[in-house]
Parts: sequence; C-alpha cells; structure tokens
Amino acid sequence: MKNYKMTIAYDGTRYQGWQRLKDTDKSIQGKIEDVLSRMCGHKVEIHGSGRTDGGVHAKGQVASFKIQTDKSCQEIRDYLNEYLPEDIAVTAVCEADDRFHARLTRCRKTYLYRINNSNISNVFERKYVYNVPEELRVDKMKKAASYLKGEHDFVGFSSLKKVKKSTIRTIYDVKIEREGSEVRIYITGDGFLYNMVRIIAGTLIEIGKGEKEPECILKVLETKNRENAGFTAPAQALTLYEVRYDL
Amino acid sequence: MKNYKMTIAYDGTRYQGWQRLKDTDKSIQGKIEDVLSRMCGHKVEIHGSGRTDGGVHAKGQVASFKIQTDKSCQEIRDYLNEYLPEDIAVTAVCEADDRFHARLTRCRKTYLYRINNSNISNVFERKYVYNVPEELRVDKMKKAASYLKGEHDFVGFSSLKKVKKSTIRTIYDVKIEREGSEVRIYITGDGFLYNMVRIIAGTLIEIGKGEKEPECILKVLETKNRENAGFTAPAQALTLYEVRYDL
Repeated sequence: MKNYKMTIAYDGTRYQGWQRLKDTDKSIQGKIEDVLSRMCGHKVEIHGSGRTDGGVHAKGQVASFKIQTDKSCQEIRDYLNEYLPEDIAVTAVCEADDRFHARLTRCRKTYLYRINNSNISNVFERKYVYNVPEELRVDKMKKAASYLKGEHDFVGFSSLKKVKKSTIRTIYDVKIEREGSEVRIYITGDGFLYNMVRIIAGTLIEIGKGEKEPECILKVLETKNRENAGFTAPAQALTLYEVRYDL
Repeated sequence: MKNYKMTIAYDGTRYQGWQRLKDTDKSIQGKIEDVLSRMCGHKVEIHGSGRTDGGVHAKGQVASFKIQTDKSCQEIRDYLNEYLPEDIAVTAVCEADDRFHARLTRCRKTYLYRINNSNISNVFERKYVYNVPEELRVDKMKKAASYLKGEHDFVGFSSLKKVKKSTIRTIYDVKIEREGSEVRIYITGDGFLYNMVRIIAGTLIEIGKGEKEPECILKVLETKNRENAGFTAPAQALTLYEVRYDL
C-alpha cells in the first residue's frame, strides 16, 4: 500500500459539503471515493484536511488515501478527472510520506472570503461572492483583523452548541485587500471551529460598514460570547484556499 | 429627450441571446427594456452594438436609448441594477452625443474566446471556457492569426445562408495569450459576420492541435468556402469584451 496526497478544487454550490454522510453522495468526499473505489475495484476511503460546509468552495483542499496500484500519480489524477463531475477537479496527486494524514498531520489552512463591494452585480463571479453595496472601510477592517492574530480561545466566534474539545486556535495571519470593487479576506490558521471563518467574516463586514468598532473583536475574545460577534456570513463566498503541511 | 449610452455585462448562459424576439423575454435586450420601460412609465427601445448569440456573454456590450427623465445617469444605472436579474449588470450609463447610436455609429469590437487547455476542469470558470485537453501550439495559432488581419471577405468564416449585404470586414488585431492552462484569443474588428468569431476560434484551435496548418486561413479567405475552415467553437466560451466608438 502506498500513501498518496491529493489536491482538490471544487465549486461547492451543488453539494451538501465535503463530508460523506451515510448512503448519500451529495458530498465531495463521496464523489471522489466513488471514482477511486471504481478504479481500485474495492472500497477506498479518503481523509480530507477538514470538512467544508455545504456551499463552501475549495481551491486547494487536500486529502490523503492509501491504495495499491500500478498507476502513476498522473494516471491516478487523470482517471479521477475523467470520471468526476465538472465542478470537482483533482489538480494534483503525489506520493506522500507514510506518516502523512491530511487531517491528523499539522497544517496551516488559508480561507478566502470574497465580497463584491458594489451595488453592481459581478455577473461572472456572482456565485462566489457576497454582495455588500455599502462602502466598506478597509482600514477599520484591517485594524480589527490585527486583534485576531495569535493564540486565542475563539469559542465566541463559533456556532458550537456543546463544547467538549479545546476551542483554542492560532490565527497566523489575516490579510484584507481591495481590488477594484472586490474586497478579499484571507485568514490563515492552524484550524478553525465550526462556522468560525464565516462569523469572523461577518464581524469584519459589520466593522467595515461602521456598525461595529474594531475593538469588538477584543470583546468577543474576552467574553467568549457569540452574541458580541457579527452575523454568520453566507457560505457561497467562502473558499478553502490552501492547506500547507510541514511533512 | 436625451440620448444615453449604457455599458452592460451579462452571463449569457440562461438567455437566447441579446436580441428581443416577439413576446418573449428570454433575451438580454428584453430584460433591460422591461426595466427601463417600467422606470419611464412607457415603452422604451434600446439599440445594442450588435446581437450576441444564445449562450454568449458580454463584459462590455454597449447600447443606446433616448428618454426624458429627471434622474441622473447614476440613478438610472442604480434603478436598472436594482431590478435586473443577477446575471445582467449595467456597469455604466452616461449622456451621449445626439448623433450617437450604438449599432449605427462606427466602432471597434473586441471579442474574447477562452480555452481551458488542460484535462483538469477549471471548476470556477467552467461555464465560460471551452476545454481542449490536447496541448495547443500557441506559436502556430499566432502565425495563423497574422493572416486574418486587414480587410478581407470573411464569408468563408461565416454561417450565412444567403448573402445579400457585404461580407467584407476589417480585423484590426488578433491577440493570443497563454496564462497558466488558459489560452485566450482576443479578436478586434469593425464588425463580424454571423458565427464569424466562433468559426475563427474553431479554426485556430484546430491549427493549435496540429490538425490544420496556419496557411489554411489563407485558403479560406481565397476560396471563400466555409468547408475549408474549422468547426464552430461553442458559444459558452465567447465574450463580447469591449466596444469602442470614436463618437
């Protein structure tokens, strides 16, 4: 058995999310496992770096799997792309260290949240952006973002009902840039709680509109209270941009 | 009555094309006229720079219209964008010289044809590109493109059944560029015959694949025979990129 690492891009619009649920195949994981199992002639399981919610996209999701095959990495990639639907693409397959596991190996993930800051629809990108007609103060959003960096308990930025595991995460970087009428938020961290990126994006948007002050970030981190944070920004504008491993 | 010039972007996927047909509103022109008529309280007709076929997109289609209104140009634009569907956007409205007419005033049009030159789907752009897995020889395509420039009878590059009007057109420029796995063809001319850009794109693709030689362009121009040209490349990868007027 060899261990493989694959990189995947997908348009999440049609799917219930990354994770396979019993007996359904409206998941991205399910679609890929089905084709890989067909290639191998037996059931194959793949492990993603993490789940993405329904409607969330990926430019660089990573998954690992172990199979026995005579095919080269490129042949595996080509086989997958031949049978996968057009909204899922395997952009790379390579052999990985035996210890590598896409979910368990430590990584840095970058998410991208895209905002069309205009009252004019971006007709070609409309399914991948969130429309905010009011002018966003990017300077204020950047100030707020600076408070997010570092190791914190982010439970106030999550939709978790019951908290069993640690809710401490590290955010390495938050980059906010404007290009024309688009505002992009890139968030890089060692992991994210349920809905955490979307709630951070929603909070930053409210700060950009002037509905909240940048310092509200500090208050959410301090009080650990979801109610002090902003709304959960829509899934369709969120993309898992990159996953980087040391291994 | 004031004369206005508007610039429009649209995703043509859902539409039968630019031109309004009797009693149907699956045209882009129809959608815009309906909103403009509602704003004015009476029927308004708009004139596009030209028709685009069903499935063809536009980044910079131009149309003109005459109305009497107290609204500013920006207010007209905002009104239209408020009521137009998300796949049609009016990106600009301005007052124009009285003599300006989007179809009759002389202009230079640029079309863009987008090719995903890969066996890996471009998941986010898949509705706006044509997939060519075989490697394209861009150098050969550029050589072929050079033969297209200038004033020629392009009837061999059209799907016209009966020819009444002149089929002589001028192509000012053909630019072919590769960026990553995408190959883009920009064609600028004073006008284009029915299906002319798609047949030129199809011919250039066949040349890039090595199925035809660059000199076949000369043969089509000389023989004026459609059969010497390549296939009609799909509409979904074609975008009316820009329309420029002297006036």
